[in-house]
Amino acid sequence: MKTLNAIRDYLKNKNWDAVIIPTADPHQNEVPADRYQIRRALSGFTGSAGTLVVMDTQAGLWTDGRYELQGAQELEGTGIDLYITNLPGTKKMLDALKELPEDATIAVDAGRMSFGEYKTIEKGIAPRTLTGDLDSDALWGEFPPIPGGELIVLDDENAGASVQEKIDRLRKTLEEKKIDGSMIGASEDIAWLLNARGSDVANTPVFYAYLWVDQSASMLFVDTKKIGDGLSAVLEKANISVHPYETVYTFAEKIKDQKVLLDENRSNARMVQIFRENNDVLLERNPSEFFKARKNEAEIRHMKLAHHADGLALTNFFYWLEKEGAGHTEYEIGTKLLQFRQEQKGFIEESFGTIAGYKENGAIVHYHAHQETAKTLEKESLLLLDSGRQYDVGTTDITRTVAMGTLREEEKKDYTYTLKAHIALSTAQFLEGTKGIVLDGFCRYPLWKEGIDFKHGTGHGVGYRLSVHEGPMSISPVYRAEAIETGQILSIEPGIYRAGKHGVRIENLAVVEERVENEFGRFLGFSPITICYIDTDPVDAQWLTQAEIQWLNEYNAFVYESLADELTEEVRAFLHRKTRPIA
Amino acid sequence: MKTLNAIRDYLKNKNWDAVIIPTADPHQNEVPADRYQIRRALSGFTGSAGTLVVMDTQAGLWTDGRYELQGAQELEGTGIDLYITNLPGTKKMLDALKELPEDATIAVDAGRMSFGEYKTIEKGIAPRTLTGDLDSDALWGEFPPIPGGELIVLDDENAGASVQEKIDRLRKTLEEKKIDGSMIGASEDIAWLLNARGSDVANTPVFYAYLWVDQSASMLFVDTKKIGDGLSAVLEKANISVHPYETVYTFAEKIKDQKVLLDENRSNARMVQIFRENNDVLLERNPSEFFKARKNEAEIRHMKLAHHADGLALTNFFYWLEKEGAGHTEYEIGTKLLQFRQEQKGFIEESFGTIAGYKENGAIVHYHAHQETAKTLEKESLLLLDSGRQYDVGTTDITRTVAMGTLREEEKKDYTYTLKAHIALSTAQFLEGTKGIVLDGFCRYPLWKEGIDFKHGTGHGVGYRLSVHEGPMSISPVYRAEAIETGQILSIEPGIYRAGKHGVRIENLAVVEERVENEFGRFLGFSPITICYIDTDPVDAQWLTQAEIQWLNEYNAFVYESLADELTEEVRAFLHRKTRPIA
Repeated sequence: MKTLNAIRDYLKNKNWDAVIIPTADPHQNEVPADRYQIRRALSGFTGSAGTLVVMDTQAGLWTDGRYELQGAQELEGTGIDLYITNLPGTKKMLDALKELPEDATIAVDAGRMSFGEYKTIEKGIAPRTLTGDLDSDALWGEFPPIPGGELIVLDDENAGASVQEKIDRLRKTLEEKKIDGSMIGASEDIAWLLNARGSDVANTPVFYAYLWVDQSASMLFVDTKKIGDGLSAVLEKANISVHPYETVYTFAEKIKDQKVLLDENRSNARMVQIFRENNDVLLERNPSEFFKARKNEAEIRHMKLAHHADGLALTNFFYWLEKEGAGHTEYEIGTKLLQFRQEQKGFIEESFGTIAGYKENGAIVHYHAHQETAKTLEKESLLLLDSGRQYDVGTTDITRTVAMGTLREEEKKDYTYTLKAHIALSTAQFLEGTKGIVLDGFCRYPLWKEGIDFKHGTGHGVGYRLSVHEGPMSISPVYRAEAIETGQILSIEPGIYRAGKHGVRIENLAVVEERVENEFGRFLGFSPITICYIDTDPVDAQWLTQAEIQWLNEYNAFVYESLADELTEEVRAFLHRKTRPIA
Repeated sequence: MKTLNAIRDYLKNKNWDAVIIPTADPHQNEVPADRYQIRRALSGFTGSAGTLVVMDTQAGLWTDGRYELQGAQELEGTGIDLYITNLPGTKKMLDALKELPEDATIAVDAGRMSFGEYKTIEKGIAPRTLTGDLDSDALWGEFPPIPGGELIVLDDENAGASVQEKIDRLRKTLEEKKIDGSMIGASEDIAWLLNARGSDVANTPVFYAYLWVDQSASMLFVDTKKIGDGLSAVLEKANISVHPYETVYTFAEKIKDQKVLLDENRSNARMVQIFRENNDVLLERNPSEFFKARKNEAEIRHMKLAHHADGLALTNFFYWLEKEGAGHTEYEIGTKLLQFRQEQKGFIEESFGTIAGYKENGAIVHYHAHQETAKTLEKESLLLLDSGRQYDVGTTDITRTVAMGTLREEEKKDYTYTLKAHIALSTAQFLEGTKGIVLDGFCRYPLWKEGIDFKHGTGHGVGYRLSVHEGPMSISPVYRAEAIETGQILSIEPGIYRAGKHGVRIENLAVVEERVENEFGRFLGFSPITICYIDTDPVDAQWLTQAEIQWLNEYNAFVYESLADELTEEVRAFLHRKTRPIA
């Protein structure tokens, strides 16, 4: 870890008053590769989220409540103060910076921050000056190499559309918008457009690259060593030329007098600034984000296969948990679950860090169990388990809450109401054009009637062998103008959290399908693609309607039908018991 | 009626290529006084809505589907073409204007159009020039006088707050926003702030005035003859000076170097343009709109009294309808209902034109029966009745749909599902901060499940002895950032409309109240203030849950309890029968 003094010397030398170092790579990936983990390196704090600010006499690290303990431990003695952003009364990062004199200069690396975020900070610290000239690499000095694994090619059967078809579609959209060209920085979009997958960052099979598309040429900027013969042939067929990753800015500087589309939240500020010098830049979401969101038939079919494999792994795990879980810690449970998944064909990695929260830890929405402090499971109360993985046929994300033994009345009621909320949205039918904020309300309606709310969104998009959080779709109390559309895959994940007591969340992924078209319009609905039983032990049927009970029984019957043949006799008997209809 | 030639001569003289004449007064009231009905006078079309456009060789009148027949009749031989805006394929007004050469000049009267609308037209016709210099009065030549009735004063007990308190509150808000002064043009806001009511326009008891408020002075611009001794004393006490209505623009021209707040949708373009000349203008909703929307205890108490009176009138009417309705026309029914209301103490006028739609006419959302063409009621099918009135204690708006005799299965099912939707929202509990778009979804949820939708909003705000359509609150599929808040009074009015067959709508007004505050937040809900039985004859209970049946029975029991003592013996027996619980 670099000492604060060394960073401050660097600042003085540059005549800067402060430096902001977020957790970010040039492409706004959720988890940056080690190559870009400068915030971790300079602060010594190893949490997944956080921003380091170093000023002349102060230094602070802003992160969220998940890291209150860990942050305090890791930052002890460093001279860096810890700020937990979601605690009431915590000083905001921008407010700390505004304690600097009005003529202060604050530095960031414009190449490691989205243009959208850059603008927000610039506005927030005014009249102080923001410069994007920080060279992270020079400040860091020593950093690990960029990962170099060869990229995987999805054949057209796997991808459902050829690269040429996808690029043509993008060109057509650009033409309609009267755009000359677009520089795509979003890693998931590039992976999707090129039917290629990588292993540069954790949890999401993407790779570091930029893709320029105009009406006559497509140019891929990437570590050329990653392109094997297979992908090489695919790119050639689609007329996409390959260029070294680091030449992208030089290329961008040469583009002049064009109308260029850039996504301000998926392009770094440096890239936007370069294009703005000599071009007319339209800041808008990448059209590929909208294409990618609506899965084609092949993608949906493969996603279902991934969920089938995941369902087998989870069933085996839950059988083990019932027999042997008590006495193990949350941490051990997470490890065990991973083992069961690794047994499945096509397993690649987890799609995010598993959340295994027992009793009161279930009420901590982003809980992450640590080996030393994890709670030991007993034969009572609820275990909340939120996990997912990347398979070679798709991406999963599922939460189940299961009874470890005897339950209190409140636990049963909260479980049953969470299920009620889950069913309310799962069975909803909605007019084409309906926004996520309305569907979010459908899910909360039964909870709000009881004076209960959960403080997170109801659902997020999920990619096909890509990010477990995918836009533009979202089911959340925050309004978004983009409607929910057929082919999108979203999570449905209401919860009830009682601080200090227990937490419940029930999450399926579901695909949006057309239901009926008539004189009143076109109506859509959800079909679940997650295949794992919903525990009926904690259900108190007095709180459910007949229609809700029927949905639960039918869903569990579908799970049994789907998985039974591939389970051992004893696990099959277990699943049969678990999916017995309730009255 | 002025001939088109005379208008065209006027245009030529001014060197204008076209003139746009909307249905509007200087204050954007829903129904302009006759004094401002220039569109009606120049076109000969007497419908309530419509915009006249006169160009050199063409002339058109844009109105909606309600006036398809009437418009065709009234415009015959005038040389003015009729455009029905909500018919697919109808040429849009702006598109018609865009057929003019790019150097054309199009004139409107900036004093008779909101600044918001002015901007929209200006942008829509670019690069053609929009001028606001049309002098409507000069073009019209001869127009009726502005109404002159003396204003009514609400005492503080009636208004729930003194004028001084209201002005102080407005000043405080302006101060917080760092605003020097505000010119209010919205008639309802002025009436509310001054605890005064007038009779200048139909359906809404407002009066033509402007109110200027800054930190040191308040100035009312109004026809001074309308101010009686009572109001004079009230204004004096609150330090509000009175000035002739027509001097407002001269006053506005003198304001310089101030920060001024104007509501662009409730200020005419002329006013905004004058203030913009010499001041820093903030375009934002009038703060008084937000104050007025949340009724105080006295306002709610009085609104309930108005609904009590209305309930008595309606019950007497429905008794008559059951006995003697068949054989009468929709038009006669409307007249009869008005008579029953006129019998009630404190009746002033209708708050909008009654909609009485029998059978297939019920499916026409804005149907208005005409004496000559009205349908005659038989002993079958459904009658939809949407009506409201102004009392001296408040404003009402109610829709009931009643069985005239035997019903078809589809009529029963549609009625029952409309009721289900009505109950879904009426019984909803929702987190503070919830937007109208989410509540709109709550109401549609049960209908969408059946593949049914209605093509109008679910609810609108209603004023206290003011407009029957009041902002900023709204329950509609169109997103609005303003949350639904306690004290607001809104309609809940889902419907099902089968073209050519029948229409159902069930509408109550309800006040938003706090329900519970706990660890999850503060939850709100609706309490109905409409007091009129909901017909159970068309209900098919198989489509309702026990909870829904209970709500219906409890609501009807509350109606009986509230009204029975004030009804004649035979009407009481009728209401008793109509409010009998269903199983």
